[in-house]
Amino acid sequence: MMIGQGFDAHRFATPGTGRPLWLAGLLWPVPEDADPLQASYYEGIEGDSDGDVAAHALIDALLAAAGLGDIGSLFGVGAEAHGAGMHGADMLKETTAYLTANGYKPVSASVAIVGNRPKIGTRRTQAETVLSAAVGCRVSLTATTTDHMGFTGSGEGIAAIANALVIRQ
Amino acid sequence: MMIGQGFDAHRFATPGTGRPLWLAGLLWPVPEDADPLQASYYEGIEGDSDGDVAAHALIDALLAAAGLGDIGSLFGVGAEAHGAGMHGADMLKETTAYLTANGYKPVSASVAIVGNRPKIGTRRTQAETVLSAAVGCRVSLTATTTDHMGFTGSGEGIAAIANALVIRQ
Amino acid sequence: MMIGQGFDAHRFATPGTGRPLWLAGLLWPVPEDADPLQASYYEGIEGDSDGDVAAHALIDALLAAAGLGDIGSLFGVGAEAHGAGMHGADMLKETTAYLTANGYKPVSASVAIVGNRPKIGTRRTQAETVLSAAVGCRVSLTATTTDHMGFTGSGEGIAAIANALVIRQ
Repeated sequence: MMIGQGFDAHRFATPGTGRPLWLAGLLWPVPEDADPLQASYYEGIEGDSDGDVAAHALIDALLAAAGLGDIGSLFGVGAEAHGAGMHGADMLKETTAYLTANGYKPVSASVAIVGNRPKIGTRRTQAETVLSAAVGCRVSLTATTTDHMGFTGSGEGIAAIANALVIRQ
Repeated sequence: MMIGQGFDAHRFATPGTGRPLWLAGLLWPVPEDADPLQASYYEGIEGDSDGDVAAHALIDALLAAAGLGDIGSLFGVGAEAHGAGMHGADMLKETTAYLTANGYKPVSASVAIVGNRPKIGTRRTQAETVLSAAVGCRVSLTATTTDHMGFTGSGEGIAAIANALVIRQ
Repeated sequence: MMIGQGFDAHRFATPGTGRPLWLAGLLWPVPEDADPLQASYYEGIEGDSDGDVAAHALIDALLAAAGLGDIGSLFGVGAEAHGAGMHGADMLKETTAYLTANGYKPVSASVAIVGNRPKIGTRRTQAETVLSAAVGCRVSLTATTTDHMGFTGSGEGIAAIANALVIRQ
């Protein structure tokens, strides 16, 4: 059994850009009854792909556990990267396929999201279902804030810390 | 064997509020010979419960490893929460009881505290004994600073990163 | 099987001090064709030893997994410490020897570096080889940035998060 550690952080998009918020494999829509003056609250996360820090941290944890590089070596970096525009769940599926092709199988994974929004608790089970299906093993999700401290507390960005266990098939 | 990741961060209380400092299952008293002008150095950590970030990060790691939600779903959030006013060690005991009731058993856990104070090294063995007794398996504790960088380095707050392994009973 | 978590962060040296940059067991030299006006870009990391946050986080993860204290208790703290001036790979070798002497064996470890520089991807395989040889099991390395957020994003410092699995021999 082998262990991997992953981390990722991204910046929330500039208010007004209308970027959708993807996180933990889910789209977090602006509520229909949202106050238009508060719509910026729902700006998405920047990034070459959809900015899903939870998925990205999990990908690094899985690749590290298998000794197969990291998200940059598998998906590339920048607007021309293979992973550009991809959603987190699809990137996780491709990661697991890459592990399988190299003789590894994920057996357990977990990710802790650190940020002010969205409120993960309301959809944690749904997110865990999507992430688990993508990885092919149980993926757990927790979330916390930093009491308005640091870049995750100011609302500037969001971070995720992940770990994973894999075995040789 | 399943793995979980946990993280927590809290703000130190405003100097002068006299909040006791609880961390890693221990009360860290103001030394009897403390300079009264430095007493603010011993302010406790804010939080709905006792603010014990090490215990809270461990709870999230344990719940994540077992796929049983997170600290917010088990203990609630806010002043009216079930966990309000609870000490970290008692919350850990309740977490392990919840795992046991659901057929899981913690086998190993670890937490890294990130902050300027208190000086963990002086009482690490004592803290590990309390945390291990609460969780029912060996819990290791490390501590480091961030060289005066970020919110943990400025003394604004304190953070903890934890991981855990559980098995099905 | 037992799990450990490690974390470390250090500040980049003041530009102009000519401190060599050691990270993940490697020396990262200033390129021969470096613009002299950009040489400060290659300043090393401060610390009692060589400032190798990746090695230090791994040491804490390994010691925690074995329940054998942390880097401060094994190597000391400050300019007079046993570890003063030591390189990360040598500290890792001594850590593994300490585990072995106490009946523990590392079976897997992983570290995620968080910072702007150096560009880890270009030498990740080389670093993994050095770290794995030092620890005596496969050590994986990933790296990411924080999109110019926080102390790792401003270039003020660099951080590393590690985990490890050990068994009793």
